[in-house]
Amino acid sequence: MALDNPFYSPQMQGPYTLQSVGRFELEDGGVIPDLQLAVATYGELNADRSNAILIPTWFSGTHATWEQVYIGPGRALDPQKYFIVVVNQIGNGLSTSPHNTDDPSIAMSKFPSVRIGDDVRAQEQLLRETYGIDRLALVVGGSMGAQQTWEWAVRFPDKVLRAAPIAGTAQNTPHDFLFTQTLMEAITSDPGWNGGEYASNADVAAGLSRHADIWAVMGLSTDFWKTEFWRGVPPLVEGQGWDTFEEFQDRFIRFLFSAMDPNALLSMGWKWQRGDVARNTDGDLAAALGRVTAKTFVMPIEQDMFFPPRDCAAEQELTPGSELRVLSSIAGHFGLFGFEPSWMEQVDTNLSELLAAEVDGR
Amino acid sequence: MALDNPFYSPQMQGPYTLQSVGRFELEDGGVIPDLQLAVATYGELNADRSNAILIPTWFSGTHATWEQVYIGPGRALDPQKYFIVVVNQIGNGLSTSPHNTDDPSIAMSKFPSVRIGDDVRAQEQLLRETYGIDRLALVVGGSMGAQQTWEWAVRFPDKVLRAAPIAGTAQNTPHDFLFTQTLMEAITSDPGWNGGEYASNADVAAGLSRHADIWAVMGLSTDFWKTEFWRGVPPLVEGQGWDTFEEFQDRFIRFLFSAMDPNALLSMGWKWQRGDVARNTDGDLAAALGRVTAKTFVMPIEQDMFFPPRDCAAEQELTPGSELRVLSSIAGHFGLFGFEPSWMEQVDTNLSELLAAEVDGR
Repeated sequence: MALDNPFYSPQMQGPYTLQSVGRFELEDGGVIPDLQLAVATYGELNADRSNAILIPTWFSGTHATWEQVYIGPGRALDPQKYFIVVVNQIGNGLSTSPHNTDDPSIAMSKFPSVRIGDDVRAQEQLLRETYGIDRLALVVGGSMGAQQTWEWAVRFPDKVLRAAPIAGTAQNTPHDFLFTQTLMEAITSDPGWNGGEYASNADVAAGLSRHADIWAVMGLSTDFWKTEFWRGVPPLVEGQGWDTFEEFQDRFIRFLFSAMDPNALLSMGWKWQRGDVARNTDGDLAAALGRVTAKTFVMPIEQDMFFPPRDCAAEQELTPGSELRVLSSIAGHFGLFGFEPSWMEQVDTNLSELLAAEVDGR
Repeated sequence: MALDNPFYSPQMQGPYTLQSVGRFELEDGGVIPDLQLAVATYGELNADRSNAILIPTWFSGTHATWEQVYIGPGRALDPQKYFIVVVNQIGNGLSTSPHNTDDPSIAMSKFPSVRIGDDVRAQEQLLRETYGIDRLALVVGGSMGAQQTWEWAVRFPDKVLRAAPIAGTAQNTPHDFLFTQTLMEAITSDPGWNGGEYASNADVAAGLSRHADIWAVMGLSTDFWKTEFWRGVPPLVEGQGWDTFEEFQDRFIRFLFSAMDPNALLSMGWKWQRGDVARNTDGDLAAALGRVTAKTFVMPIEQDMFFPPRDCAAEQELTPGSELRVLSSIAGHFGLFGFEPSWMEQVDTNLSELLAAEVDGR
């Protein structure tokens, strides 16, 4: 029986609809008998279906941050101009996930391994079958959303006119693999995790807290902490602000990750570790990226501790018609949360330019 | 009764002598009834006692790496010219530490909190009482050794002619505090740690392994892993080399940290988190660094994930007569291990120049 976790409710995340893509066979051999994708849309699809934008989600993230921070009138991601579809990734707690399914064949510890390619194939099917979309004006995503963006551009080059992978790579690096491993070990080392068969995420509170503590180190930057930038971050719960960095760590980072489902984080972690577009080309990364026909802006964050610009630049150089656009945020990787006004200025400027760019012959 | 741990034996670490500085009262209120410092010396003290160099050790480190990598004829740290004293920090497993004392008042979980200032006072007493040294030609150390180097230059300015803090700060940053916390949580979350009352470090194998895995992420650099630099690192045990990054992680990083004592790592971690020369000046960092009269080369490592050059540069700018000398290593912080010939070239060039520098009026 599915576990109740209010963090993933529409009350917490904002409205979304569950859309079935039916029985779904996974690249690693497993099957999800009835794959439900949690989808949120903004704006209207135009008559010739040429104004669709797809946004896949990041690790631990949902459509909510995109709705609250990135999408709005006057922004590059303007629902008055575009039909914007945010698809929550498989296993993120909203789409079919270990804790929210009633199907005993895939519940909890039995949840099958899901890869980036599975998400992208499921999204392609959803867009085609539900909306009749066979060409995207833009695919944009951050972090694991960037992994999916890259996979879209390589796997379905004819369907992607423009691509904007932000703070993520096409081929996961060994360093990232090891980093994700520490995040996963923080959870699985908690006896309360019980091999994935816990009764409530609260049983894994200690592991989720340690998981959050690693994010505090790797997700942000030394400058974020040193300059006490957190003083300007609004509290998550009214009256529960912070006067010290320890309080910010506890009431923002631990608070957020402790609300999540451990198996969902592990499912996404396993997927993140193995993101690799070269699976489409027998391991040849240059060949994979050489397939890309989208106009592509590769957008790493300067202070990112685990997707540093040099790793993203190496992939950009292998991608025809791409440009490197380095973003800056004192928050490092968590710049994606949009803590700073300057963040959205940079994102909007780049995405607006990308969306305005003519795409040859298409 | 002291625990037997062969990692800390002279067979593993090379020769050292235990020298007592007697009953030692600690800044945080505890007492070590008979503080033994593990000391290794190289070269001869000259007649006017003007050729002494002090090297304090880093987190998890001992005198052995200094002996094997940094000290030798023809190097800047030349035992034919200098009397070089490497003092293992308190709690490092060789000097008096939780696991190696027979005194029940301080054994294991009862080991008192030790601060950087305690190490520096104990070293000063040792040098004065044992060798009659009251002036050091140079203090040089890496990481927590840099913390001690800074503390020496601030606390005993008349005794330090030259200082070279490598890859470490005078005042620990919040980011570093949080990073060290994850290292400590990896150990204390292991039920085998048992509140510090284990029978053998093997009881804490899982925690030590997770501790090592965090080092694999933060201690090295994305480039170290991506370029497979580890292929050129010689095996620790003959015949136990590596063909994959997972094997290197297991047979080098986990192997090394799993041999250590958990309580020793925790004692050093607590100390590292609180390193702060401004404790000498009521919290005023500028006033503390303003005390420094040593000729000082501040030497961060460009790719260091947790002591980045910008944090070290900020302190250098507050230090009279200092210079910033940024070192480069693909290994990031673990560049300190001296994996690359180019590492020792940089260190030797800078230390030779520093040792040749005239020090005004002294």
